[in-house]
Amino acid sequence: MESVGVGLIGTGYMGKCHALAWNCVNPVFGDCPQVKLVHLADITEAQARDKARELGFADSTADWRAVIENPQVDVVSVTTPNSFHPEMAIAALKAGKHVWCEKPMAPDIKDAERMRDAARGSGRVAILGYNYIQNPIIRHMGSLLDGGEIGEVFHIRLEMDEDFMADPDALFYWKSEASAGYGAIDDFAVHPLSLVHKLLGPVSSVMADMAMPYPDRPLADGGRRKVETYDIASALIRLENGASGTLCVSRTAWGRKGRVAIQIFGSRGSIIFDQERMNELRLYRNDGPSANQGFATILASPDHSPYERFLPAPGHGLGFNDMKTIECRQLLAAMQDENAHVIDFEEGLIIERTVHAMAQSYHARGWVDV
Amino acid sequence: MESVGVGLIGTGYMGKCHALAWNCVNPVFGDCPQVKLVHLADITEAQARDKARELGFADSTADWRAVIENPQVDVVSVTTPNSFHPEMAIAALKAGKHVWCEKPMAPDIKDAERMRDAARGSGRVAILGYNYIQNPIIRHMGSLLDGGEIGEVFHIRLEMDEDFMADPDALFYWKSEASAGYGAIDDFAVHPLSLVHKLLGPVSSVMADMAMPYPDRPLADGGRRKVETYDIASALIRLENGASGTLCVSRTAWGRKGRVAIQIFGSRGSIIFDQERMNELRLYRNDGPSANQGFATILASPDHSPYERFLPAPGHGLGFNDMKTIECRQLLAAMQDENAHVIDFEEGLIIERTVHAMAQSYHARGWVDV
Amino acid sequence: MESVGVGLIGTGYMGKCHALAWNCVNPVFGDCPQVKLVHLADITEAQARDKARELGFADSTADWRAVIENPQVDVVSVTTPNSFHPEMAIAALKAGKHVWCEKPMAPDIKDAERMRDAARGSGRVAILGYNYIQNPIIRHMGSLLDGGEIGEVFHIRLEMDEDFMADPDALFYWKSEASAGYGAIDDFAVHPLSLVHKLLGPVSSVMADMAMPYPDRPLADGGRRKVETYDIASALIRLENGASGTLCVSRTAWGRKGRVAIQIFGSRGSIIFDQERMNELRLYRNDGPSANQGFATILASPDHSPYERFLPAPGHGLGFNDMKTIECRQLLAAMQDENAHVIDFEEGLIIERTVHAMAQSYHARGWVDV
Amino acid sequence: MESVGVGLIGTGYMGKCHALAWNCVNPVFGDCPQVKLVHLADITEAQARDKARELGFADSTADWRAVIENPQVDVVSVTTPNSFHPEMAIAALKAGKHVWCEKPMAPDIKDAERMRDAARGSGRVAILGYNYIQNPIIRHMGSLLDGGEIGEVFHIRLEMDEDFMADPDALFYWKSEASAGYGAIDDFAVHPLSLVHKLLGPVSSVMADMAMPYPDRPLADGGRRKVETYDIASALIRLENGASGTLCVSRTAWGRKGRVAIQIFGSRGSIIFDQERMNELRLYRNDGPSANQGFATILASPDHSPYERFLPAPGHGLGFNDMKTIECRQLLAAMQDENAHVIDFEEGLIIERTVHAMAQSYHARGWVDV
Repeated sequence: MESVGVGLIGTGYMGKCHALAWNCVNPVFGDCPQVKLVHLADITEAQARDKARELGFADSTADWRAVIENPQVDVVSVTTPNSFHPEMAIAALKAGKHVWCEKPMAPDIKDAERMRDAARGSGRVAILGYNYIQNPIIRHMGSLLDGGEIGEVFHIRLEMDEDFMADPDALFYWKSEASAGYGAIDDFAVHPLSLVHKLLGPVSSVMADMAMPYPDRPLADGGRRKVETYDIASALIRLENGASGTLCVSRTAWGRKGRVAIQIFGSRGSIIFDQERMNELRLYRNDGPSANQGFATILASPDHSPYERFLPAPGHGLGFNDMKTIECRQLLAAMQDENAHVIDFEEGLIIERTVHAMAQSYHARGWVDV
Repeated sequence: MESVGVGLIGTGYMGKCHALAWNCVNPVFGDCPQVKLVHLADITEAQARDKARELGFADSTADWRAVIENPQVDVVSVTTPNSFHPEMAIAALKAGKHVWCEKPMAPDIKDAERMRDAARGSGRVAILGYNYIQNPIIRHMGSLLDGGEIGEVFHIRLEMDEDFMADPDALFYWKSEASAGYGAIDDFAVHPLSLVHKLLGPVSSVMADMAMPYPDRPLADGGRRKVETYDIASALIRLENGASGTLCVSRTAWGRKGRVAIQIFGSRGSIIFDQERMNELRLYRNDGPSANQGFATILASPDHSPYERFLPAPGHGLGFNDMKTIECRQLLAAMQDENAHVIDFEEGLIIERTVHAMAQSYHARGWVDV
Repeated sequence: MESVGVGLIGTGYMGKCHALAWNCVNPVFGDCPQVKLVHLADITEAQARDKARELGFADSTADWRAVIENPQVDVVSVTTPNSFHPEMAIAALKAGKHVWCEKPMAPDIKDAERMRDAARGSGRVAILGYNYIQNPIIRHMGSLLDGGEIGEVFHIRLEMDEDFMADPDALFYWKSEASAGYGAIDDFAVHPLSLVHKLLGPVSSVMADMAMPYPDRPLADGGRRKVETYDIASALIRLENGASGTLCVSRTAWGRKGRVAIQIFGSRGSIIFDQERMNELRLYRNDGPSANQGFATILASPDHSPYERFLPAPGHGLGFNDMKTIECRQLLAAMQDENAHVIDFEEGLIIERTVHAMAQSYHARGWVDV
Repeated sequence: MESVGVGLIGTGYMGKCHALAWNCVNPVFGDCPQVKLVHLADITEAQARDKARELGFADSTADWRAVIENPQVDVVSVTTPNSFHPEMAIAALKAGKHVWCEKPMAPDIKDAERMRDAARGSGRVAILGYNYIQNPIIRHMGSLLDGGEIGEVFHIRLEMDEDFMADPDALFYWKSEASAGYGAIDDFAVHPLSLVHKLLGPVSSVMADMAMPYPDRPLADGGRRKVETYDIASALIRLENGASGTLCVSRTAWGRKGRVAIQIFGSRGSIIFDQERMNELRLYRNDGPSANQGFATILASPDHSPYERFLPAPGHGLGFNDMKTIECRQLLAAMQDENAHVIDFEEGLIIERTVHAMAQSYHARGWVDV
């Protein structure tokens, strides 16, 4: 594979993120096929044209099917709102394209299953945009766990919190409508679950509580509307490997901006991480004299591949967008049948089933197997 | 009340802690009755004599009833193992003494109820040793909450973790026997619950999971014995005020030494605390330009009474034992019919019922009302 | 200016960093001239060809003058070792190109002066690669200072530390030779000085100490060679605005990986920053009740322009390379005669004079005016 | 020595601190002579009587010489303002008493020398109240250094900052008068110097800068008065062991409440400490795979003697006053001719000479040998 033709559908938050990754993957890694930015789709012709120019794509369209049908396109980034994922991703796979779809797969688990089915028979790569798993310091966490550095893991605690819906005076918008899903559990839980999945394996059973901190929110015209989604969720979890744990998410946690906090406890040590300090890992090992034991704050460095592709000096700091460039590189590896660290539609479906099981357990007021 | 005669039963970890508090409360506060250290009981006469000398008590005995019956004694510190609390506390109350009993009240909830009943009719003060509630920076947290600084509280997360049982190679000892109680939930959960109780009010319902990370532990003679208690527990909780939350405890959390971590989320801000940095409070308020918002790390200072009784300079640091001295001062206030910030046997019983409800919910695999 | 033709000389650490910035500046900002990667020079033809392919340049050469003379090239990135900067930068300016030269300008202050002179008369933009000044949270620090949020600044403390030369058993290499300059003071002092320069203005006088922690280092052949440069330097400084301060640098500070630590004290508050946590600013203001005062940890967010060009969500984290993309955008602004936040050859010369004054003060054992 | 009779002169900040230590040293340590609180002197008879009752002293007086002459008194705590130290300490020594004097010894170095001389010939113990050296985690720092855990130390950085004079609108008071001494350098520099002295040995030469952030301050009557002392000082230092370093102090550092920050760099690692988190030590060692290296945050624990005398559980936190109790125990050890970790008048004089040399170097604008 000498070169790769790229199509992009959607140019919002994640669309730009994909575009940056496609622009950077060659100069950062230098060892992958030449990326050609072929075709970009956006809502209107004018907007698509502007975005194609900005983001470096050769051609543009308001018809996303044109991207999928373009014979120069080998792989399609699908970054539209979640409800569009199934149709677009399935169409792209049917057209023989590889697919890089943003997470979650789909609001309805049935649609996610159809996506998984479409990927299964396609002979194409179909992965999801779980970028947190790509952080070199998270990859190092995986190496530590696999190497038994903290012994057998028996307990974990996961949190993901932001505050973009914390203001009770903010206007009602679509995220508070039932049609948007359950709430925080959709928005956030998949992220820590992707990390657990890669680091420790699947969740086997769950028992969740969900909460609506604000029963209604103001409307622009002065009235108020009842909130239909849960901005907070907390769950007890059990992993297939036997570990117990908790998973807590909130989008109304004042002061939390991008917190994805992990605590992993094992028989010989512990590991702690917080995405708000994404270049730091804290490692405690029951090793050496107890008088000298403490959590070591490890800074991301060229020792934690592929950090060295971005920077030769340790502790200088990668950013959120760099994770996406690594994800892009892993996608290219998968497309070349190389061993790749990605979450494909099979694994993605397991993660989303876990979220649905959580919601189900809330209503059932008891444990639910995933 | 010009002076107060003190009796002490037990001279272990908490016994010494009480003795230090009784020695310090006069010089630290300077505004309370003169404390007279009258009578101390320990297991043997010799040990009691040595400890009385060390800890400054005038008289000593191997018969704890002698302390209770001593007419010079006005108040009795009960710091023996938990199973002795009911008999001693009830006897002391019957003898007309005030009681300062270490927590928890008793392994069996029935005994705790008897203690509460004995206190009810006694006309005496009967309080429990929940010292974390006395931290001046925690008291300030209470003022912030009461003053509405973070608005209406709708979610909390509590953790208490240590690692004194984290080593799977440590010998089996009594804390792993079923007779010791449930496990981490007894040892630890009462502490964060005491904080919640004072800061936000009672817990109304719970749903817990418990776990045994190590199924057995080595014996001194080379064999192994099955562990019967749960070193880890996690619970979903609901408060009477409507807030949701989680409470997680572990005594096998490598690297955690005295973590009592609290996160409180409200409609206008958040508060975070960790006992391992017991002189710091982190406060976030949605106030002023968002570009300047962040968690403020507030250091304990004379602004947070009664810190100023220990130190006139801010940020110089109180210690764990200082909390006990404050608790002692509050006990003296209660004995003088002044308004006191303590957890008496009534409130203590509610806290212990919450713990028992958690254990029950684990076995029932569903929510249990407290 | 519809488009900009770019030449790049050098493809090492900073060369790749420039190349990444040139690749990203369009998709990140979307509002600047189309960047065309025209010509790249490296040491050999083969290496230049490989790097051009990797980094996206159309043409390659082993003759750096070919880049400078290429009429398609509007601006030249000079990222070769420092001793080459004067010849290349001056030649590029003479050829009518804008110049983006890595810092420091030149080992010899005379050469730096020649560069400044060449820039003066050229009518072209000539800037230096001081990327730390571009950090959005540092720019916010500037706004806070300019807005008087911490009052009048009267004291600062600056540190820059890494540990890449901390190992006494590491082999002697060119950085320990006198021909490489003074040592840590060259390597590092310019960085914090660039920040001071932009935030508070020029340094007026200095008094430095320098130290060689390891008098000699091992050679590959088994012998040892005397070290000729100073791995550590500390200086007392006075700013033109009257503030006092210190500046400390070390490249033998075990555990420090990319520390650029700033403490700024004013009459109404303080600001703290550490590059190892480059997305965080700590701000203290004497404002509101003292019981609630504390350093607020502000996370970089879209409130801190141009963070929002990279990410719409706060607290998600920019990286070191993102600073270079912002620098590139500022360079393009300067080339369009727009107001730009850069350090040009005029200002760069002042910074380097400060470094030379420090070295001079060390030998003179007294204060030296810059 | 079965028992020790204690006299206390002065009952302010440090007087109370001494009294608390004298009250606690028996119950905390349990292995030292019985402390008898014999005689207390304060300014008036009434005040002395009140304080004696509060602090537990048997007798009281308004004549400090009565304390010194009391035959029941073996040791005298001198905690009056600094200018009274020489007369009182010398009188006490002459009366055959041991002396525990607060630091610094005296505003005038000549008086400090007289105090040292008086101690020399007395056959009595005469120590200064440098309590920071008693912190168990600081003692552990000493063990790490002595054990070569971070190799040979070649560089240190010291800071001590508070903000009690940071407000330019605060009224002029005696600390801004020249008669009070130099300023921050008196107030603070002795503290980090005591730590350096015990951990690494004496300072050999210094070069300081001092600054007055606020040239004048308001008077109560509405006028303003010129400030005569320096609220800020910064110094380059060299140690006798060859290490270089800096020492910075400020009493106008907004947000700093009790910061005594130490950075120690050696050939194999680094140690960091900040008194505002007095129960934490950060240790970096170049040991094991670099991918796992990081600063370990060690929490004070029973591994760090004599922490275990206060608390059997790690990470539960000592406070500022506990340091004084340890100091008191060391004083008792010295009085029993045991090996004691104290700063006596000999060492104290060296520390104060260092401070005077700093002030001298400021005026001389050059290095001064101590």
